[in-house]
Amino acid sequence: MTYRIAFAALPLVLAAPAFAQDDPAPVTPTSVVAEAAPEEWIAIAAEDLLVMELAPDTAGDPRTVVIQLLPPPFSQPWVENIRTLALAHWWDGTSVNRVQDNYVTQWGDVTEEKVLPEGVVAPVVDYETTNGHLTDAIMAMVGPAEVDRLLAQGTDSPEYAVKMGIREDLNADAAAGGAFFSMGWPAASDGRELESQVWPIHCYGYVGVGRGYAPDTGTGAELYTIIGQPQRHMDRNLAVVGRIIEGMEHLSSLPRGSGDLGFYTEEEAHLRTPILTVRLASELEQPPAFEYLDTASESFARYVHVRANRDDAFYTVPAGGVDVCSVQVPVREMMGD
Amino acid sequence: MTYRIAFAALPLVLAAPAFAQDDPAPVTPTSVVAEAAPEEWIAIAAEDLLVMELAPDTAGDPRTVVIQLLPPPFSQPWVENIRTLALAHWWDGTSVNRVQDNYVTQWGDVTEEKVLPEGVVAPVVDYETTNGHLTDAIMAMVGPAEVDRLLAQGTDSPEYAVKMGIREDLNADAAAGGAFFSMGWPAASDGRELESQVWPIHCYGYVGVGRGYAPDTGTGAELYTIIGQPQRHMDRNLAVVGRIIEGMEHLSSLPRGSGDLGFYTEEEAHLRTPILTVRLASELEQPPAFEYLDTASESFARYVHVRANRDDAFYTVPAGGVDVCSVQVPVREMMGD
Repeated sequence: MTYRIAFAALPLVLAAPAFAQDDPAPVTPTSVVAEAAPEEWIAIAAEDLLVMELAPDTAGDPRTVVIQLLPPPFSQPWVENIRTLALAHWWDGTSVNRVQDNYVTQWGDVTEEKVLPEGVVAPVVDYETTNGHLTDAIMAMVGPAEVDRLLAQGTDSPEYAVKMGIREDLNADAAAGGAFFSMGWPAASDGRELESQVWPIHCYGYVGVGRGYAPDTGTGAELYTIIGQPQRHMDRNLAVVGRIIEGMEHLSSLPRGSGDLGFYTEEEAHLRTPILTVRLASELEQPPAFEYLDTASESFARYVHVRANRDDAFYTVPAGGVDVCSVQVPVREMMGD
Repeated sequence: MTYRIAFAALPLVLAAPAFAQDDPAPVTPTSVVAEAAPEEWIAIAAEDLLVMELAPDTAGDPRTVVIQLLPPPFSQPWVENIRTLALAHWWDGTSVNRVQDNYVTQWGDVTEEKVLPEGVVAPVVDYETTNGHLTDAIMAMVGPAEVDRLLAQGTDSPEYAVKMGIREDLNADAAAGGAFFSMGWPAASDGRELESQVWPIHCYGYVGVGRGYAPDTGTGAELYTIIGQPQRHMDRNLAVVGRIIEGMEHLSSLPRGSGDLGFYTEEEAHLRTPILTVRLASELEQPPAFEYLDTASESFARYVHVRANRDDAFYTVPAGGVDVCSVQVPVREMMGD
């Protein structure tokens, strides 16, 4: 298999002088990811991938957007709704209706009259779960043998801690318990006890559920993605359900709407991008296949550390810290032979 | 005079149910800014405004971008270069050459052969200054009478502290001395002593100076703006010189380049957006006029607090904190009668 990096950030090089040939190659986030071992990558299940085909662009080129859905224990009532909507082909013929600069691009049924599939209702649940439930989910993912091995190290061991989520070098407002990565996703918490609350957070390219005024929680039929500075006040007030792992540029580069909140006005109706189809990858004959870098792996820990402390030919003053949203989880397409 | 908000964020409302008529209007960042007193707004000098005219869009509509330049004590060697370049009309006929998703849009001379005006060279300076120099600059801005009044309160008084910069509720990585606002701009520092280092930071829509590999610092002829998650590792490694206060959408919604680092390839040369003119507002017959909310004002402190603690009809779980870059300094156009 050969691989392609789908979402790794590149250094800002604004002119491009050549390196002297005897310079050692600098360590960058990209180089750390490139050197990760094959077993540090985790394949994403086809039922966790949503493939959205927008109408082709003006040059006639296809615009495919791939969304990875959030795993348990987070946001599952909405994620289930989203699978139901995709299997019902409900989004086919809907459109992108709102693009607000430095905020969100949003898509769904502009008429607000399209009937939802049976069973798709706004759940009455919290946006949070507990560290205890998160630990259970991690244990379920890693399997009983690995759980036994980890517990033998002790719950205060570094290895146990890293499996539960990397908490070094990371920063997020309003997260007294810290920001961290768990099972491939960024999260924040209000403490480290088993009963402390923990929640998924909004980052650039992350997908959430549109809704009306609280306490409505939305169904998942109306979705948005972050196209600017992520706002911590969205966390715990809106449901994060996934992230865009391919084709983000097709949503971030759309013309901004001039209506309230960036909605396209009726005069701008022609700017609404048609959505041709949305499918679960498991429904496709030739499903795309992606994998992400295990956030409990050594390479991911190195990646976080290097991102927080850039020190190479271009950056000479290490920041010494990094916002959790500046650490994009590496995701790459698995290309067939 | 009437006013128009140029850069204030709006709440995310995804459906739009009406408020019951007897509900009190919720306090939001927007409402706080709307209620600020006229004397809390500070006019921006015409020589601190750069007006960039891009080629009209496909519908023939003009695309005007207005940049506010950073005041002393920050980045002045580059800001002076930029004024010189604008007065020489150097950018006329150049183009936007790079758009990298979730990173930067960059413009300048794609040929890299255009001769710079006399005196425009890359300065050999640090990207930082000291709290002491910042204090001097603030004192120069507020004037001797106000300085005497403030010093009479004592340098540990709340009023003195707020004039030096609001440090409450704010968060930024790698800023041991905190993130704060001073003279209308976000900054970070490594301590609170007079000799502690302090530096301007990159936020969405902020403008910096492109350069080659370190220790080159760039001249200011090549500029970029942030179109995604701001990266703290850019601070102190690249010069922040201003921010876009109008027309950001014309730079953030451009098609992404498919070349390395988001540069347009030769096959994509038609995607480069032509820059018709760049002028200092002071050179224009009908200069635009803008003002910003004094970051040492009571209304700004309220605005920061409300942004960190959204609690209204839409948001019901206050975040309790806010990233410094989530607090866009309110800037608005001053419209003639």
